[in-house]
Amino acid sequence: MNGEFEIGDDLTRLVDGVVRSYRADERTRHIGQSFFPSRTEIGELIERLLELVYPGFFGRQGLTDHNVAYHVGELIPRIAFIAHRQVYRSLCYHDRISRGGATHDPSCEARADELTREFLNRLPGVRARLADDVQAAVDGDPAATGCDEVVLAYPGMLAVSVYRLAHELHELRVPLIPRVMTEWAHRMTGVDIHPGATVGRSFFIDHGTGVVIGETTHIGDNVKVYQGVTLGALSFPKDAGGRIIREAKRHPTVEDRVTIYANAIILGGETVIGHDSVIGGSVFLTSSVPPRSTVTFAPPDLRIKGRDGVSRLHDGKQQTIIPDYQI
Amino acid sequence: MNGEFEIGDDLTRLVDGVVRSYRADERTRHIGQSFFPSRTEIGELIERLLELVYPGFFGRQGLTDHNVAYHVGELIPRIAFIAHRQVYRSLCYHDRISRGGATHDPSCEARADELTREFLNRLPGVRARLADDVQAAVDGDPAATGCDEVVLAYPGMLAVSVYRLAHELHELRVPLIPRVMTEWAHRMTGVDIHPGATVGRSFFIDHGTGVVIGETTHIGDNVKVYQGVTLGALSFPKDAGGRIIREAKRHPTVEDRVTIYANAIILGGETVIGHDSVIGGSVFLTSSVPPRSTVTFAPPDLRIKGRDGVSRLHDGKQQTIIPDYQI
Amino acid sequence: MNGEFEIGDDLTRLVDGVVRSYRADERTRHIGQSFFPSRTEIGELIERLLELVYPGFFGRQGLTDHNVAYHVGELIPRIAFIAHRQVYRSLCYHDRISRGGATHDPSCEARADELTREFLNRLPGVRARLADDVQAAVDGDPAATGCDEVVLAYPGMLAVSVYRLAHELHELRVPLIPRVMTEWAHRMTGVDIHPGATVGRSFFIDHGTGVVIGETTHIGDNVKVYQGVTLGALSFPKDAGGRIIREAKRHPTVEDRVTIYANAIILGGETVIGHDSVIGGSVFLTSSVPPRSTVTFAPPDLRIKGRDGVSRLHDGKQQTIIPDYQI
Repeated sequence: MNGEFEIGDDLTRLVDGVVRSYRADERTRHIGQSFFPSRTEIGELIERLLELVYPGFFGRQGLTDHNVAYHVGELIPRIAFIAHRQVYRSLCYHDRISRGGATHDPSCEARADELTREFLNRLPGVRARLADDVQAAVDGDPAATGCDEVVLAYPGMLAVSVYRLAHELHELRVPLIPRVMTEWAHRMTGVDIHPGATVGRSFFIDHGTGVVIGETTHIGDNVKVYQGVTLGALSFPKDAGGRIIREAKRHPTVEDRVTIYANAIILGGETVIGHDSVIGGSVFLTSSVPPRSTVTFAPPDLRIKGRDGVSRLHDGKQQTIIPDYQI
Repeated sequence: MNGEFEIGDDLTRLVDGVVRSYRADERTRHIGQSFFPSRTEIGELIERLLELVYPGFFGRQGLTDHNVAYHVGELIPRIAFIAHRQVYRSLCYHDRISRGGATHDPSCEARADELTREFLNRLPGVRARLADDVQAAVDGDPAATGCDEVVLAYPGMLAVSVYRLAHELHELRVPLIPRVMTEWAHRMTGVDIHPGATVGRSFFIDHGTGVVIGETTHIGDNVKVYQGVTLGALSFPKDAGGRIIREAKRHPTVEDRVTIYANAIILGGETVIGHDSVIGGSVFLTSSVPPRSTVTFAPPDLRIKGRDGVSRLHDGKQQTIIPDYQI
Repeated sequence: MNGEFEIGDDLTRLVDGVVRSYRADERTRHIGQSFFPSRTEIGELIERLLELVYPGFFGRQGLTDHNVAYHVGELIPRIAFIAHRQVYRSLCYHDRISRGGATHDPSCEARADELTREFLNRLPGVRARLADDVQAAVDGDPAATGCDEVVLAYPGMLAVSVYRLAHELHELRVPLIPRVMTEWAHRMTGVDIHPGATVGRSFFIDHGTGVVIGETTHIGDNVKVYQGVTLGALSFPKDAGGRIIREAKRHPTVEDRVTIYANAIILGGETVIGHDSVIGGSVFLTSSVPPRSTVTFAPPDLRIKGRDGVSRLHDGKQQTIIPDYQI
């Protein structure tokens, strides 16, 4: 190939075309405003948080009882620095959007300071929750060899970990950052948990790919969920002006000690899955279920066409089998 | 541990074994041919394109009206350089494969030049399309706080962005690269859109994990698709020699203003979803649906076994409820 | 913003809080034990292995018949070094856990040496298997333009490649590492294959997102699987003490030349899908199917509500259509 690609005279025209396209539409640009969260820094924040939450599993290894305090003493300020900067930027951003102005309220800095400190205070509590989640995975998955494997390898555990951290920031009403965090985890794991969801103790997501847990979902304690499960919205309540009411509960409630198998879809803000219930795979539910139930569906007639061309229904057994889900 | 692992005398034998395996089968090696696309460079190309398409969201922040032209003036040549090199390599590769020869047609260089310039020309147009897609996400998802959150965090938006860029290269008949790009997005987001698919304006994929959109799919304007939806092939038309006809339309057509809910599977090149229709979750369709329809299924009988051992059908309400999907 | 965030006096308190949380619960920490696998190094090991298995596709390009032996001669020791170190650490870790002691058996080093050499010996054999898998993808997907596209871009191929490598380590009874490897692939591709599963020749996973293949699954030769397919456990056999029996076969057997379409769920250790069968999309199976069958389900009645308010069943054709799956 002779030499390199030379844009030549086209460059000016191309640049003008792109810049004109920036000016034409503000929806897909962020120019002229200093304060905006950074995807990259938030990704780094998550990795430092995972290192703090699971010492020895992520990041630095070779920790001992002698050096761990120094390690933590180095890690916390790093976390605090990034978190504070991102929180500050998102507060300023949100403040300016809300007020429609070019400047932000000077109280943003004090608020960022306060929120960051509160977030740091909550980290030991989040760790305690996550230990129970890890235990739930060990108890609930025969393939798990122990806590170490769960923390080291399970994508569901990674998703729940990031969710619990993001949820604290959501509760502290930090804009944007919680969602960026859970979508980072979504990219990593295929598990999509909105940071606004409320999740109880000892929560286990097995396999995980395709799980969707909506913003106003309530999940109790000791709940187990398999791949492809959707806890979603059925319809979107609207106000008199036709605008969707965002605060309305749109997603289901799952009570304690419920297990939901693969690909089940449960929809609706008024849908309650009663405690100690089991929801079978591929079940589609839009109304509530009482406690202590096992919900399966009579699989549709299966047609089995053999090579001799004869079509016959699958033997009677299939139609009446209720899969024996163990709790 | 005493010292490091020493392969010792085994190394020669191991190397010979691997090299012999390379020579034995050409299907999994690329040796002796200079021209081949690079996954790594294509990944970098995507990241630079995202930086250009969404200034301030990806890559460099702190852009202002004063410096943005310089930023773009720096970014476009970088994009052009990588794109041209990869396009050139893929043209040479394809040319050599087609002609079964060891050399490629010298016209590849001129063609690479022309295709790269045309691709760059199309970028403002792609940006315009993506602004409408972002708007569709804001309008279609109650959990979306605004355009910024969509661009910053939504994996469905990321997948559609990469698809639209790859689709231009596909239309320009660039080999391999479009597919490598959409599979990069597939890895990132769980959304699998073949670059050959045709997608109209204001397209929104919510949640996204598990969505599959096949090569010959046609999608109209203002279409919304949820997680786990497959727009796939039903059967593969074959020619007289038993070879699959690749150009045949194998995937469905989805007309304007259609919404398709989670886990629906729609198959077949002749299947048309009429405009203004709603396809409910978990629906399985292999034939067309007229416009202005709401398609749901009467969920199979649910069996609820209570702890008292009594099996009973779910209350009548469930069987006749047609979930009230809002459009 | 005035200066940077200053933790100040809070730091000591925050560090103490976190360290106390480490000491309170051993389930989510790894401190004071030198031997533990590293996620990061295992990720690097996978990338080097892919570079070795698919020369010219991953990592270094520009390989020729002249330099390839040197390239391999450089790559194998790098692979060996990382593999040996990780294998050694996981053996020590497992040994100490099993014996409940603070030290490991000195035989770990010799065993790590032996297992690493055996793993390296098996690499040409794994390459041969993967060539057949690549071919299966080309033969089974009309959208595939050739082997190069499959290796370069198909996430299902990436997942199967990592699975086959991890499976060898699993067969060699190396703890932890095989699962960390397949979960890396799960993160990359959305495909979850337990390294303990047994998979025959010419295996093709198309699209892939959401596929789950359990630990005790047996898959024959020439099997094709689409996105969202689960080969899972139905119930977990327990021993007299109520503990789940891990060695019991919990996952299905899929015989030769079976095709399983999107979102099918097949459960149970005694479930056998007979050879030459086709399992249709969204089928839910918990019992065996004889050879040479096509299993579909009569889709549940579809209700189509038109805008004129009239509810009608989908035309008779839909209810009796058995999708014409081609083998």
